[in-house]
Amino acid sequence: MSGGVMVPPAMIGVLGSGQLGRMLAQVARQMGFGVTVFSPGEDTPAGQVATVEVSAGYGDLAAVRRFAEGVDVVTYEFENVPLATVAAVVEAGTAVHPAPMALQVAQNRLREKRFFEACGLPVADFAAVESLADLHEAIRQIGLPAVLKTAESGYDGKGQVKILAADEAESAWLAIGQRAAILEAFVPFEREISVVVARGSSGEMAHYGIIENEHANHILDVSVAPAVVDDVLAETAVAAAQTVIEKLGVQGVVCVEFFVTAQGLLLNEMAPRPHNSGHLTIEGFATSQFEQQLRAICGWRLGSTRRVSAVAMANLLGEVWLTNEGRVDWSAVGRVPGARLHLYGKGAARPGRKMGHITATGRDVAEAKARVLEARRRLDRDLS
Amino acid sequence: MSGGVMVPPAMIGVLGSGQLGRMLAQVARQMGFGVTVFSPGEDTPAGQVATVEVSAGYGDLAAVRRFAEGVDVVTYEFENVPLATVAAVVEAGTAVHPAPMALQVAQNRLREKRFFEACGLPVADFAAVESLADLHEAIRQIGLPAVLKTAESGYDGKGQVKILAADEAESAWLAIGQRAAILEAFVPFEREISVVVARGSSGEMAHYGIIENEHANHILDVSVAPAVVDDVLAETAVAAAQTVIEKLGVQGVVCVEFFVTAQGLLLNEMAPRPHNSGHLTIEGFATSQFEQQLRAICGWRLGSTRRVSAVAMANLLGEVWLTNEGRVDWSAVGRVPGARLHLYGKGAARPGRKMGHITATGRDVAEAKARVLEARRRLDRDLS
Repeated sequence: MSGGVMVPPAMIGVLGSGQLGRMLAQVARQMGFGVTVFSPGEDTPAGQVATVEVSAGYGDLAAVRRFAEGVDVVTYEFENVPLATVAAVVEAGTAVHPAPMALQVAQNRLREKRFFEACGLPVADFAAVESLADLHEAIRQIGLPAVLKTAESGYDGKGQVKILAADEAESAWLAIGQRAAILEAFVPFEREISVVVARGSSGEMAHYGIIENEHANHILDVSVAPAVVDDVLAETAVAAAQTVIEKLGVQGVVCVEFFVTAQGLLLNEMAPRPHNSGHLTIEGFATSQFEQQLRAICGWRLGSTRRVSAVAMANLLGEVWLTNEGRVDWSAVGRVPGARLHLYGKGAARPGRKMGHITATGRDVAEAKARVLEARRRLDRDLS
Repeated sequence: MSGGVMVPPAMIGVLGSGQLGRMLAQVARQMGFGVTVFSPGEDTPAGQVATVEVSAGYGDLAAVRRFAEGVDVVTYEFENVPLATVAAVVEAGTAVHPAPMALQVAQNRLREKRFFEACGLPVADFAAVESLADLHEAIRQIGLPAVLKTAESGYDGKGQVKILAADEAESAWLAIGQRAAILEAFVPFEREISVVVARGSSGEMAHYGIIENEHANHILDVSVAPAVVDDVLAETAVAAAQTVIEKLGVQGVVCVEFFVTAQGLLLNEMAPRPHNSGHLTIEGFATSQFEQQLRAICGWRLGSTRRVSAVAMANLLGEVWLTNEGRVDWSAVGRVPGARLHLYGKGAARPGRKMGHITATGRDVAEAKARVLEARRRLDRDLS
């Protein structure tokens, strides 16, 4: 066995315990690996299917060190794991993939945008905002409409406010909590796409082509693959994602999200982990993004990203439970050809909370998308 | 929700805790179901990935009743679960699928053969043997060579002896332990094939076409799909499997194994559960045999059995561990395009023990088979 290659029954450590960790754990255990999940939660989506669930705060560095000593390699399933937590793993002598630098960049929108710029990749105009005075200056510089976003810990549209007129600056600054922020020019995009790319220990890369995404209320709603885009645009997006993962030196999976505008592609954001838009790789491709991450962090050769079908994914948010008073006939999904159900084992349904997803395959993306939407529609009790 | 339909987070009860239960549990949990596994073992392949692992003997009927009361539906993952155990589940008011009758037939080779005959399906000549005198008479009737098999609890070639000459009768009778047996005419078959067929609550059926199997030392070694067979033979085999599952009234999955002889098809045996030869459905088909079983026992519509690729499966027996002194470089599997590793989490490697399998997809069965054999070959430390 060559150095740094992890094989079953090696123990994979995962920081974070949501659905991304769950799907990683599922494929890892299928392959004979053990999985230890670390998070403050109990009976978590990932912990439910892991070999061991450690419940401790990310700031409990003694617990982090014990966790690190009990596993063979560590990865993270969300990008807001504190850097001090990851540092404690490294100090305990356990390898962490992707490397902490990717986390550092992903945790801060300003660093992320500057990193994209430094890579020579196109982004919307932006400016750093640390005060109301900065914000006024930034508006003069960038113009309106623009979007004010907290630099850190925003996701699914949280911590961001659209500014249409200059006199909205102060209320926007208050709305995001007067925190370090970034002002971005509003992008009148035509479509949103993403590229999930993996990079192995020897630097080889594999990607899943172009995935097209639709959001609703700032939360990913539907993804399809392969997106119907022109070849030049597709090549540009893939090349950009490859640049990002290479420059970050990531051994693992990165997802880069793009806006397609009339003027061309703009990079929106990236995540150094499997991504919601890549869930459709489970049914649609020979190797899922989760198996790919596992292979990468374990030093295996990357798997084939051959597409086996046109495929679409629709998220299931807490609303599905709430509007049906908790009694959902999930077997309705099974009545739609090619549709498959994924539920994450989360206890409490809340509006906007990602509780599961449906995937459907089809002869083309139109059929796959129609199927996945039909499957989700049938979950409504009044319609099924 | 219509009567008898189980949806997440319903709890699926599984009698037995081997790899078949493991793979069923994995897909069930992916879909949001809970899984409780019942067997005498601890830290079992299925128990490791289940929500709850109950460790008690099949004869501990109080424990069986408690298990049954804690789950919404019960299935079994091997056919030698005692009928009294299944009866205790039924008495506790919990539905069991497939119906116990299928178990009763599958547990006894003589009943099985008579059942096939009663269905009008072709089998090799056979005779019941309950004494040495019976055996001599059976040999006169059937001729030689023939195979003497215990009527019950044989698998993977255990409990069977080939008889070439009449004077071997007594030693054969002693070798199988002088137990109730069946003498079967030896079938000089050309090939072995199987059909995995599922049947839903409303009687609809779905199958995976013809799978071709190769055995080594009476243990399944390699399976491929689709088998290259002529259309008439394929239709005959599928129709026979459909007859078997219908006549048994099974709501679940049945695998029927056939010999292909110069004179045509002969039914060999059947199992009322997912089957080793159907493991390749995980990668090769839109819905695996395990998801299909889950859908069937939960009263869902069956899933699509569309084939997504040519596919081959090779078993990993304990020998792989033993010949490599327990240090196997599993990442070698990842170096073969299209190959995927499945390990069952079994602690002790023993010769002939099924510890895992490799699946490979390919452009055609020849490529898939070449890949899966190459992947397995590379596990040998001296070669990788």
